[in-house]
Amino acid sequence: MFTSKPIGFVSSPYKSAGEVPKGLGAKHVAEGVLKILPEFEPGLKDIEGFSHLMVIWEFDRSQGFELLGTPPCDNRQHGVFATRSPRRPNPIAVTTVELRRREGSNLHVGGVDMLDGTPILDIKPYLSSIPEEKLRRGWLAEAEARKS
Amino acid sequence: MFTSKPIGFVSSPYKSAGEVPKGLGAKHVAEGVLKILPEFEPGLKDIEGFSHLMVIWEFDRSQGFELLGTPPCDNRQHGVFATRSPRRPNPIAVTTVELRRREGSNLHVGGVDMLDGTPILDIKPYLSSIPEEKLRRGWLAEAEARKS
Repeated sequence: MFTSKPIGFVSSPYKSAGEVPKGLGAKHVAEGVLKILPEFEPGLKDIEGFSHLMVIWEFDRSQGFELLGTPPCDNRQHGVFATRSPRRPNPIAVTTVELRRREGSNLHVGGVDMLDGTPILDIKPYLSSIPEEKLRRGWLAEAEARKS
Repeated sequence: MFTSKPIGFVSSPYKSAGEVPKGLGAKHVAEGVLKILPEFEPGLKDIEGFSHLMVIWEFDRSQGFELLGTPPCDNRQHGVFATRSPRRPNPIAVTTVELRRREGSNLHVGGVDMLDGTPILDIKPYLSSIPEEKLRRGWLAEAEARKS
């Protein structure tokens, strides 16, 4: 197995978890900057061509894990692997952001839901999308239906 | 930072990297099983409701990283963060699979591109999709255009 190491850090308007929009229909529209460490800058070559990036980051302010939990958007318990809970066996998060522009080793992006200072583990081009008509969203769709 | 630990292992028809379809237009249609370790099975509660899962796994047969590389589908060099190369600073991979059925702690899925025995780090429900008309795919679209 491996020990994670940051390739950079997120600059985000959110200073604490309570500020990040959560729950049903939460929109992540905040602007932020992925500040990649200078030593990794060559790895960004040609990234400007992609409209969306998959950012893999670490829940560095989360302790331990919980296999069952009640997400903020529901009042029922679900398995951690059926949710986006931060308390996971491996504290790894994935967020798709929209790349606005690159300035050297700084990537200006829209759609951040990370806290300020969050360590970035990896960036990949976002390529595929599952057509909406083929997507089932389980308990989340049910919770949405109950709410409306 | 954290040290990765497997929550399970992939059972896949692919025994070596050469067998995994690669390059432009490669389709991942292979069937496989995500064998989750019994201790993590409670974390799968309600996962059956999702049609697609994001599997986060480890490139465990890859050594070191390379900031610039030439992918199998192109003859030009690109930055590692603009490709899906296995030789990354953190050897983390993400694959979206289609969940066929669950049998206890075994998830039968379609669309695997992992090698047999690959350690699984995390599973998340696949929720969002970027509309095709909003997606730009950079050098990959260019390589496809040159090929056709």
